[in-house]
Amino acid sequence: MFLILTNQPYLLPFASAAAALIYSIYLVRWILDQPQGTKDMLEISSAIAQGSSAYLKRQAKSAAMLALPISIILGLALGINTALGFLFGAAASAIAGFIGMNVAVRTNVRTTEAAKKGLNPALTTAFKGGSVTGLLVVGMALLVVTVFYYLTHDLPALIGLGFGGSLISVLARLGGGIYTKGADVGTDMVGKIEKNIPEDDIRNPGVIADLVGDNVGDCAGMAADLFETYAVTIVAAMILGHILFDNSASIFFPLALGGIAIIGSIIGSFFVKLGSDKAIMPALYKGLIVSAVFAAISFYPITTTFAPQLTGQNPFYLYLVSLIGIITTGLFVYITEAYTSKNSGPVKTIAEASVTGHGTNIIAGLAVSLKSTFFPVVVIAIAALGAFLLAGLYGVAIAAVSMLSLTGIVVAIDSFGPITDNAGGIAEMTNQPAKVREVTDGLDAVGNTTKAVTKGYAIGSAGLAALVLFAAYPQELSTATGHIQFDLSNPYVITGLFIGGALPYLFAAFCMEAVGKAAGAIVTEIRRQFKDIKGIMTGKNKPDYGRCVDIVTQAALKEMIVPALIPVVAPLIVGFVLGPQALGGLLIGSIITGIFVAISMTTGGAAWDNAKKYIEAGALGGKGSLAHQAAVTGDTVGDPYKDTAGPAINPMIKILNVVALLIAGFLV
Amino acid sequence: MFLILTNQPYLLPFASAAAALIYSIYLVRWILDQPQGTKDMLEISSAIAQGSSAYLKRQAKSAAMLALPISIILGLALGINTALGFLFGAAASAIAGFIGMNVAVRTNVRTTEAAKKGLNPALTTAFKGGSVTGLLVVGMALLVVTVFYYLTHDLPALIGLGFGGSLISVLARLGGGIYTKGADVGTDMVGKIEKNIPEDDIRNPGVIADLVGDNVGDCAGMAADLFETYAVTIVAAMILGHILFDNSASIFFPLALGGIAIIGSIIGSFFVKLGSDKAIMPALYKGLIVSAVFAAISFYPITTTFAPQLTGQNPFYLYLVSLIGIITTGLFVYITEAYTSKNSGPVKTIAEASVTGHGTNIIAGLAVSLKSTFFPVVVIAIAALGAFLLAGLYGVAIAAVSMLSLTGIVVAIDSFGPITDNAGGIAEMTNQPAKVREVTDGLDAVGNTTKAVTKGYAIGSAGLAALVLFAAYPQELSTATGHIQFDLSNPYVITGLFIGGALPYLFAAFCMEAVGKAAGAIVTEIRRQFKDIKGIMTGKNKPDYGRCVDIVTQAALKEMIVPALIPVVAPLIVGFVLGPQALGGLLIGSIITGIFVAISMTTGGAAWDNAKKYIEAGALGGKGSLAHQAAVTGDTVGDPYKDTAGPAINPMIKILNVVALLIAGFLV
Repeated sequence: MFLILTNQPYLLPFASAAAALIYSIYLVRWILDQPQGTKDMLEISSAIAQGSSAYLKRQAKSAAMLALPISIILGLALGINTALGFLFGAAASAIAGFIGMNVAVRTNVRTTEAAKKGLNPALTTAFKGGSVTGLLVVGMALLVVTVFYYLTHDLPALIGLGFGGSLISVLARLGGGIYTKGADVGTDMVGKIEKNIPEDDIRNPGVIADLVGDNVGDCAGMAADLFETYAVTIVAAMILGHILFDNSASIFFPLALGGIAIIGSIIGSFFVKLGSDKAIMPALYKGLIVSAVFAAISFYPITTTFAPQLTGQNPFYLYLVSLIGIITTGLFVYITEAYTSKNSGPVKTIAEASVTGHGTNIIAGLAVSLKSTFFPVVVIAIAALGAFLLAGLYGVAIAAVSMLSLTGIVVAIDSFGPITDNAGGIAEMTNQPAKVREVTDGLDAVGNTTKAVTKGYAIGSAGLAALVLFAAYPQELSTATGHIQFDLSNPYVITGLFIGGALPYLFAAFCMEAVGKAAGAIVTEIRRQFKDIKGIMTGKNKPDYGRCVDIVTQAALKEMIVPALIPVVAPLIVGFVLGPQALGGLLIGSIITGIFVAISMTTGGAAWDNAKKYIEAGALGGKGSLAHQAAVTGDTVGDPYKDTAGPAINPMIKILNVVALLIAGFLV
Repeated sequence: MFLILTNQPYLLPFASAAAALIYSIYLVRWILDQPQGTKDMLEISSAIAQGSSAYLKRQAKSAAMLALPISIILGLALGINTALGFLFGAAASAIAGFIGMNVAVRTNVRTTEAAKKGLNPALTTAFKGGSVTGLLVVGMALLVVTVFYYLTHDLPALIGLGFGGSLISVLARLGGGIYTKGADVGTDMVGKIEKNIPEDDIRNPGVIADLVGDNVGDCAGMAADLFETYAVTIVAAMILGHILFDNSASIFFPLALGGIAIIGSIIGSFFVKLGSDKAIMPALYKGLIVSAVFAAISFYPITTTFAPQLTGQNPFYLYLVSLIGIITTGLFVYITEAYTSKNSGPVKTIAEASVTGHGTNIIAGLAVSLKSTFFPVVVIAIAALGAFLLAGLYGVAIAAVSMLSLTGIVVAIDSFGPITDNAGGIAEMTNQPAKVREVTDGLDAVGNTTKAVTKGYAIGSAGLAALVLFAAYPQELSTATGHIQFDLSNPYVITGLFIGGALPYLFAAFCMEAVGKAAGAIVTEIRRQFKDIKGIMTGKNKPDYGRCVDIVTQAALKEMIVPALIPVVAPLIVGFVLGPQALGGLLIGSIITGIFVAISMTTGGAAWDNAKKYIEAGALGGKGSLAHQAAVTGDTVGDPYKDTAGPAINPMIKILNVVALLIAGFLV
């Protein structure tokens, strides 16, 4: 009955991708039909849309200037297919992010307007907006991989496609991350600590830049990130399958898993509705759970249909492996919540430490960052080991694909965050009635948790994906020479491990510095405006929002280039100077420290953020107290941790691996 | 002419160790002959001595309670020699630290008194005090290793000796580190930020605990740390030599290198004198340089004498390898200075970031922490690779031994730090004339830099030492089965890598939390005293120093136990449950993340400290400004980074490796 899956293997991927794209068009039309609210609301929303669009276009230009020379080099070294794949991958990722973000900036004000009617309308509007980005990401990714393979049948060239997605991803995460946190940190520090005015106060010159940052960072950045992880993992699984089994079933199996899970994400999104308890987070989780259950059930016929053609694979074991990916997603969600939700022990500890001052808040937050890495990493290690024991290297690849198959619903939930963040800002700045702000505040608070949870997911899946890419690397080398070993007793491997381990640290340092510089520039400008423009605090004169937007834009575009080149240049140097075994060590070294640095930063940053919210809700002295000031400092530090450096390590690790795969043939 | 080295191989080690111990006795008598100053100076110095001694005794008791059961298990599992070695190693380390610290707490007040006569007398007194600890560490370590081998000829049992030293080391670093930073952070936060009183103000209830902490942490802790690294590296080189060459020359060669370098340290210490420019740091570096040059020259005859008996070893290459260790030391000193000295770019960047507030100070400091890891790690990787290419695995071991041979002069320079720190505190608290305080302040400032530099050295040498231990591990396994591979493509190895990588993070988290708790308890108590004891600020009533001392003592002893057990338990679990290859992965994983976490913390913490001093010297607003407050926050965060968590990772990594070596025989 399911033989159509293997007889017409392109059908399911094409149909699911098409369904995702068609449904998102429908959602866009629904959103645009919703009322936009009053003139002052529209003014702000237009300013945000304008700023976001302008930034993304300039970022795309910078990306193109990097991408063109790279595509030429790829074309000369590896052939036109690889170069074309690279350009298609980059373009598809950029398009998905661009459209998704433009929809998000049109959804924010409609969410505020819907909040006047109640929590459910606002939730529905915001989530539909997020779903557009989610569906575009998985739809475009699956489509472009499937179409490219359909046209070229060139698996190695697909690595180029992955590379294109990775490049856009690292630039989006870097540029968007520096932008969002430079603006956020600078604006908060003057606003909350020095002027004692609340978040999103219209008198703060940095407030528009802050709201734009949410979109270019959290929305476009996450979209590009997960587009890339999704695409690269499916490609790696296809390649690994081809090497290990040398038949087409192993190539189409990952595509089928991705395809059916897209249907699951669409179905799951219908279930995001408030229950009678009016609790928001459970409403979103309902969507995730339905998608996961659908995937878990539908993976069975798919696995058992493809498995017979994969020699040596036990169908039931392969099915269990596909479940491992889904279970890992669940565990990551659970663990991240445990460390970052407002009621969790760690968050309360940080809040309580704030009572004794700034220093103890930071010490407590750093402690949480460090220890929050343990369980997620153990989960990844055990998932990988379990998948290997059940189904070998291909099993690890399938577990990764299965974990990433939920990307549609995950990105939908994630993009919900910046939309509600903006909606809350607009409500605040246009003095909406308390009833409306209650709704948007509630949605915004949940948005913080979803951002943390989805970042945990992004890193966990990236960790698995990187392992799969690494598994493909020696295979690529071996096709030339014979089996290459990466023995830890080999000093070249050890040297590579050390250098690879250094890269995430160097990379994260550049990110933190960039944010620090951008924030410092904004603080100076905001202080200047408060001093020079009379009547800002009384509302007599408007601040010059545009200057702040300009400052962060320039800072982000300038600072993102050097770190983006690190993962491209390092493997070239190590691979050609020290050899392929050192390069293998570099890959694993970067995965090891990278995972820890990334998790510590994203989880720690989220915990700091919610510790501040916990105090702002009234505990330990509430707003204005010393504890609150200390908590704002913690939130300030956690910002670049969780939104710039932490998330950017994902794509960095994968670029390293992709570049290694591309140059493997030249190293032997 | 030098054949006596190989004919009477015990002569040089015994003679050098004896020389070190005899010379330190002479130094102690010289110090005790110096005038102690006035009654009020003595009062404080006695309080410090009492507190330090009391703490160290209680720590030793806790250590004994852990050590006895362990020694029994070792005796039953591996034989009485191993158990005895364990006890001897632990005892020797504890004795060296105890005597050294007790001399330090008697040198501090004599340094203050000598400062009345000028900078050179004070420098000489303080450095002689530090030299006692330095010479005791290398003398006892070399003596106990040589004597034990002389009596038992049991190389595997020497691993037990290393384990004993490691256990004392991790407890001293943990307990001492939690003590010193809990006291320092808590005292500073109330004193400098809330009460705006200067450092070491006699009205601050926590000030005695703070001064005691310098001794139990920086002095005793560093002594135990480097005792262990020194002993363990020499033992590992002896074992590796025996496996690779199976003759006695390879066993005595490391002992000879260690021995001659002790003579070099003694000679170098004579050169620590102020030049005409009255610059302190160069005076200390003169001692280090002379010791290094002496070692470099004297290694030649020693190497060329032993090398002929080491089949396949090129004598000149082996000599170059011994130079690699010395050069690595120099590079580490240089790089650490570049990131932490008061005039360096990174420190100024942190200071400037403090102008925009607490948050940007922390962001800047974290950025410096992260990027300061790059060059040191690259240096270690290249040193290890270079040593291997010149002389194989034994070369890496000899490079490590050569780097560690300078331990005598390094610990002398390091222990100079807490002595001058105390001396400055005593001068402040007894209202010495400005002329005297100028001298002690100058020495204290240099003390901070020496602490940072020697910590960098400790980690760099620990990294090399850990690699040597890891090199011995598969050899220990192989003697039973056949050559064991640790291929990165083996998922058990990958799992081990991940779990191993998690351990330093978990460990560091416990350290940070412990300091946070201790500091919080002290802040609460100090605030209480300021509220309840009238007239503290006017000097009418004395604060209750003893209560603060009690609080940190209890906190330190309680919190050090769990983290100390992590590196003992983890390899047992992983080794027996997942197997020897996973354990190998765990060792390397812990070295990789451990080195980065340790360097980022010690260097970042030192940079934060000196950024604060830079501002306190008058820049960017000077004392009392917002920038100063932000810098104090940074210093507060950097404290547990550089004095608790960072340094404690050294011994943790080595315990992991030593335990793996001990259980290797049972895993196959």
